Amino acid sequence: MSSFLPMLYLSPDDVVRIVQRVGLSRCITGVAERIERDFLRWPQFDKSARVACHSRDGVIELMPIADEREFAFKYVNGHPKNTQVGLPTVMAFGVLADVDTGTPRLLSELTLTTAIRTAAMSAVAARSLARPECRTMALIGNGAQSEFQAVAFRDLVGIRTIRVYDVDPAATAKLVANLVQQRLEVVICNSAKEAVQGVDIVTTVTADKVNATILTPDMVTAGMHVNAVGGDCPGKTELHSSVLEGATVFVEYEPQTRIEGDIQQMSSDFPVTELWRVLSGQSPGRSSASEVTVFDSVGFALEDYSALTFIRDLAQEHQIGRTIELVPTLSDPKNLFGAFEQQRDRHEQTAFA
Amino acid sequence: MSSFLPMLYLSPDDVVRIVQRVGLSRCITGVAERIERDFLRWPQFDKSARVACHSRDGVIELMPIADEREFAFKYVNGHPKNTQVGLPTVMAFGVLADVDTGTPRLLSELTLTTAIRTAAMSAVAARSLARPECRTMALIGNGAQSEFQAVAFRDLVGIRTIRVYDVDPAATAKLVANLVQQRLEVVICNSAKEAVQGVDIVTTVTADKVNATILTPDMVTAGMHVNAVGGDCPGKTELHSSVLEGATVFVEYEPQTRIEGDIQQMSSDFPVTELWRVLSGQSPGRSSASEVTVFDSVGFALEDYSALTFIRDLAQEHQIGRTIELVPTLSDPKNLFGAFEQQRDRHEQTAFA
Repeated sequence: MSSFLPMLYLSPDDVVRIVQRVGLSRCITGVAERIERDFLRWPQFDKSARVACHSRDGVIELMPIADEREFAFKYVNGHPKNTQVGLPTVMAFGVLADVDTGTPRLLSELTLTTAIRTAAMSAVAARSLARPECRTMALIGNGAQSEFQAVAFRDLVGIRTIRVYDVDPAATAKLVANLVQQRLEVVICNSAKEAVQGVDIVTTVTADKVNATILTPDMVTAGMHVNAVGGDCPGKTELHSSVLEGATVFVEYEPQTRIEGDIQQMSSDFPVTELWRVLSGQSPGRSSASEVTVFDSVGFALEDYSALTFIRDLAQEHQIGRTIELVPTLSDPKNLFGAFEQQRDRHEQTAFA
Repeated sequence: MSSFLPMLYLSPDDVVRIVQRVGLSRCITGVAERIERDFLRWPQFDKSARVACHSRDGVIELMPIADEREFAFKYVNGHPKNTQVGLPTVMAFGVLADVDTGTPRLLSELTLTTAIRTAAMSAVAARSLARPECRTMALIGNGAQSEFQAVAFRDLVGIRTIRVYDVDPAATAKLVANLVQQRLEVVICNSAKEAVQGVDIVTTVTADKVNATILTPDMVTAGMHVNAVGGDCPGKTELHSSVLEGATVFVEYEPQTRIEGDIQQMSSDFPVTELWRVLSGQSPGRSSASEVTVFDSVGFALEDYSALTFIRDLAQEHQIGRTIELVPTLSDPKNLFGAFEQQRDRHEQTAFA
C-alpha cells in the first residue's frame, strides 16, 4: 500500500489563515451568498433531521446532507458546561465526499467555521424577514457566537447599534472588547428587558440547556424581528410560548425544528414557514411593518454544506491546507487482505515463535 | 491559538502496522471478544438505525452509537462499481468522542478495520448459531471481505475446508492466492450451487446492489447455517425469500435490519431474534441439529464501536499513530472571535489597502 486517495485536511489554524487572508467580514458575506444560493435549490438536496445523542450535560449530533454531486456531514456537540473546564461549548468538524463513488475529499475543522455560518444564516433570514430600515439590535447571550452575529448583522442587515446583555458580565466585557474596532455602537445593558428597549431586532444566543424564557411577550413590540438562535435542542428553548403565538414563525427545515426549535413548545400543527420558500418567492415573508417575525433557527446541515464548500474553495484558491491519508488506495481494490499480507512471513514468525 | 486538544489519528498505514505487529488472526479474535463483550451490555447503548444517503451507484452511511462514556460513529460507503475505477467498494473511517464534553478523541481509518470487524461479527454469530461440529463452508463472493471471513471462521468456528465461488474468476484466483498459507483447504467451484454441496455453513458476501437470489431453497440442507453478509441495503439482497421462510432468522439490530437486511423482502412481522439475546442467554439460538439458521447481517454501529476501541487500545499499547488538530483550544473558550482577531490589523491593512 503505497499511495492514498488525496483528501484535503484543514486544521483550525488553516481556517484562521484563510479567514485572515480574505477578511472575516467577506467570509461571512461569502458564506451568506452560498447559503442563499443553496437554499434556492432546496428541492435538489437529500435532507434529514440530524441524528442526536443526548446525555446528561449535552448532545452530540451528526448532520448529513447531499445533492447529486457532494455528500456533506458535520459532527457537532453542544455542552453548555464545557466553558467551566476550558473547552468550547460547541466543537465541530466536517467532511465532504463524492456521491458517485463515496470517496471522502475534505476533512475540515468546523468549530470556527460554524460560528461564521450560523451568523451568516441569521443575517440571511433577517434580511428577508426584518423591516428594511432596521438599525438597532439586542444581543442577548454574549458567548462564543455573539460577535459573529454582530458583524453579520452590521454587514448584511445594516445594524449600527447593538444593545448587549449576558448573565455573565465577563462574557459581555469580552464582547465589548472584541467589537471596539468594528464600527458598531455597543450599549451594555443590565437585563434582557433593558436590552430590547426600542430595538428593531432581538437576537437570542444563550447556551443553557433549559426551557428558558429569555423573551416574554411584554418585551416584544410591533414590527420586531426575533432571531432565536440558542433554542436548538429538546429541552433547550429561549422564547415564551406566547411570543411564538403572537408572531409569524419561519424555520430552516421543519421536521428538525419541530423537534429542536423553540416551536417544540407548540402543537405539531402550529403554523411555520420554511425559509427557502420565502427566499425563492413561493411564500410571503413579512406581510406588514407591524408584524412580529421569528426566525426559529436550530442550524441545518445545508448551511454546513454551504460553509464547507465555501471554505474548501478558498483553501484551494489560496493553497492552504494539507492532504491526509484516511482511505487506502489498493493496486487491486478487491485485495484488501493483501494490505496486511506484505509482511506476513515476518508476522507469523513473531506470532508463532 | 497555540495548543490543540489531543486527538489520536490512525492512518491506513498505522492500522496495517498494528495488525502486522499483533497478527491478523489475533486481531480478528480480539475484535470478536470485544463484540461479544459489548453485545452483552446491549441495553447500555444509545442505538439508532444508520442514516443512509442513497444515489444511483451506491450509498453513503453514518453509523452513530454511544454508551455513557464514549460516542462512536463510522462513515462508510458502498459502491459496487468502484472496483471498475480502481477504488474499493467499501471505504470507511470513524471517530471516538467523550460523551461528557463532546470532545473528539480518535480519528481512524476503518476501511481495513471494517473487514476485520465484519468477519469477527459473522464468526461470533456462527459460533452461537451453527452446529458445533461445522468444518466446511461455502464462500460465495470472493471480493475484498472474503479472506477475512475465511480466517475468522477457521479460528473461531473451526472451519477447515472452504468451497469458493465468484462470478469473477479473477476474484477467486486472488482469494486462493491469499489463502495459500492459511492452513485451509480451498476448493474452487464453478457455481454457487456447486459451492454449497455438502457444506455446514454458507457465507454469502456479494457486492451487487440488486435483489439477487444467490441462495435458493433447493441449495439449503437440514442443519445448515447461512451467514448472509452481502444483503445490507434497500434493493440489495442475496437470499430467496423461501430460504428465509424455512429458517430461523437472527439479526443485529432489528429496526435497521428490517430496512436493509434480506428480511426487507418479508412482512414487518416476520419473526426475527436479535443476536444479543442469544449471546446473553435470553433467547434460544439453534433449537435442533436439523434447523436451518440464518444470520441476516447488515453491519451495526456497535460492531464499529467495538473495533474502534480495540484498535485505539492497541495503538496506545504499541505507540502507533499521530495526533491531529481538528478542534481549537482557546485561552478563553467563550472567545472564539479572538482566534480570528490576533492579526486583524494586518488583515485590515490588506483588505482595505
